[in-house]
Amino acid sequence: MSNEKQVIGILGGGQLARMMVLEGAPLGAAFRIVDTAETPCAAQFAPTERADWRDLEALAPFAEAIDVATFDFENVPAETAQWLTEHVRVHPGPQALAVAQDRMAEKTLFREIGLDTARFAAIDTRADLDRALEEIGVPAILKTRRLGYDGKGQFRLRDVADADAAWDALGEQAAQHGLILESFVPFDYEVSVIAVRGRDGDFRTWPLTRNWHADGILSLSLAPAPGTEAIADTAFAHARTLAERLSYVGVFALELFVKDGRVLGNEMAPRVHNSGHWTYDGAVTSQFQNHVRAVLGLPLGDTAVRGCSVMFNWIGAMPDMATALAVDDVHWHDYGKSPRPGRKVGHATVCGPDFATVRARVQALAEALGRVEQAAPLLELPVS
Amino acid sequence: MSNEKQVIGILGGGQLARMMVLEGAPLGAAFRIVDTAETPCAAQFAPTERADWRDLEALAPFAEAIDVATFDFENVPAETAQWLTEHVRVHPGPQALAVAQDRMAEKTLFREIGLDTARFAAIDTRADLDRALEEIGVPAILKTRRLGYDGKGQFRLRDVADADAAWDALGEQAAQHGLILESFVPFDYEVSVIAVRGRDGDFRTWPLTRNWHADGILSLSLAPAPGTEAIADTAFAHARTLAERLSYVGVFALELFVKDGRVLGNEMAPRVHNSGHWTYDGAVTSQFQNHVRAVLGLPLGDTAVRGCSVMFNWIGAMPDMATALAVDDVHWHDYGKSPRPGRKVGHATVCGPDFATVRARVQALAEALGRVEQAAPLLELPVS
Repeated sequence: MSNEKQVIGILGGGQLARMMVLEGAPLGAAFRIVDTAETPCAAQFAPTERADWRDLEALAPFAEAIDVATFDFENVPAETAQWLTEHVRVHPGPQALAVAQDRMAEKTLFREIGLDTARFAAIDTRADLDRALEEIGVPAILKTRRLGYDGKGQFRLRDVADADAAWDALGEQAAQHGLILESFVPFDYEVSVIAVRGRDGDFRTWPLTRNWHADGILSLSLAPAPGTEAIADTAFAHARTLAERLSYVGVFALELFVKDGRVLGNEMAPRVHNSGHWTYDGAVTSQFQNHVRAVLGLPLGDTAVRGCSVMFNWIGAMPDMATALAVDDVHWHDYGKSPRPGRKVGHATVCGPDFATVRARVQALAEALGRVEQAAPLLELPVS
Repeated sequence: MSNEKQVIGILGGGQLARMMVLEGAPLGAAFRIVDTAETPCAAQFAPTERADWRDLEALAPFAEAIDVATFDFENVPAETAQWLTEHVRVHPGPQALAVAQDRMAEKTLFREIGLDTARFAAIDTRADLDRALEEIGVPAILKTRRLGYDGKGQFRLRDVADADAAWDALGEQAAQHGLILESFVPFDYEVSVIAVRGRDGDFRTWPLTRNWHADGILSLSLAPAPGTEAIADTAFAHARTLAERLSYVGVFALELFVKDGRVLGNEMAPRVHNSGHWTYDGAVTSQFQNHVRAVLGLPLGDTAVRGCSVMFNWIGAMPDMATALAVDDVHWHDYGKSPRPGRKVGHATVCGPDFATVRARVQALAEALGRVEQAAPLLELPVS
């Protein structure tokens, strides 16, 4: 490849696009964004136009102007992604998007590649739900097959008698998006694989990341995930097989539950992922730069970590920046969004040479910001 | 300080502004650039307007729109910087700019703070030159007092008989910019202090950086500079005194010659500096982010290094990026400029845990890119 400037088109202009631009810029790439909103937060750093995801006429000038398309938003209609492939390279491809957009297809593929999952069944009618509850039992979770994220579009059934309430909540979406009933796994903890695959098939993973959620939204990540030596190779092998089956190009996340030393596939995200944000500050090459390298066909960068990192997600509103930056090795990420309940508006990464050092900094940060509750799961871990 | 979005205005839109934007963006700041060129390379990532540095009417809307002004270009007229202070905060202030813009004022200040320099004398006439040559002797260098950079505006005298040729080359500039004759120091090597001072007076330095030039332009930097333990404290103390004397806010570079274990002040640059570019990839906090933190009045970040770093400057044209990225821990920086002889168009940083590792990577990179000659001074250093 020569150094000719390539234009990367990004569908969706949120914080993922914003960080792709900031981390991809040093490679000399240009960026162009399309979003359904007028000024998404990435628009501060790249030319941005507005279009509906299904309006191919409105998308045509965007497709004309770019050399390769990629995604900040995974729920771009697969038909649009397919249409894009007729104009430019598209990474990841429509097949990967389609699988990740449908919980049934996703979990079916997990099973096909030998990655266990919770029991699950497709639900199209109320009768399907009753039948599935008999097979799968409770506790279980009824989810929309499509368009769910951050815990939205989910209903937890503790008892078979909850079926009415679950159907009241989600039944209307059965026709449009489809539903899936999944057995609730009382897992020990959750980890994610952040992986990248190049156009040439080169495959790399960052160390496993341990994640904690609050109200269905990622709250805290820790990498490398302690005590996961025994499952890491298995987790990485599943991620590689998945990527190869999908001819995947770019970064993706594979979320896994760990129960009694076994891993279960939860879901995959066909894009850079919130649980990999720590790589911006805590790895030799970030997920954002490696995604850009992959879609441009460049050699992938080293995914080694620099010590240990913890990421705090800031949900709803940003804490006080100056207070946070007074703590050593704290890296701030304000996405430039206006505050709104439940909205991801920024994050902070706390780095250090080892877990004990990072834990002390996390404690200092949490106390300074009044976020001890958010940090609690991490502070409860043994330092060993 | 609250998290209210601050607008940082940058005078000059070259690669220094570009990297300030990319590294300052995560702090949630907004940027606005003014430059004498239509589309300087930072314009890709920040709104940019064109104005002449002395056209205060054209600069007025820029001054109105920003909260704090800073510089990518150090030769903005001091009168313009002074005028800006009547509208917004300006960091660094006009006094620091004025000193750095005048080699006589700069070297006089170095002497005042106890930092030795080569012998020097102001030259306004041909008679001054003859007199100074008698006092200072040869070899010596005749330089313009103002507006010189990257070896431009300099003439080296090996013999008193070179005075005619020197005057032919630079005599015309004596009236406009003034000239200075400096004794040529046969120094052992050159280092720079990259330092930052916050609004609150907090002062920090990155480790000393050793620099090699080619044709008067920085070619190669190595940090931490090996074998400088004995001079580091002295060098940092001079930088601190200088910063305090100038009430300096932001990042600056102090270039020093080292001769027989003594340091001599060469010049200061009142801005982020080429010899600090390695901090983008090789330090906990880069010079670019710390400059933004300083001008915003935020706590400064940790200036510790991550192992060892070498920076290659790319002059004139970029080498092949894909070839370079195949080498481990190579970080690429393409400024998005068109090629032109003598122009700084990009750089690469090679990082690693220690000098021996980095040296091997530098060798691999230099061989792959056909840049062994550029890397030679570094490859000749003992690995010890």
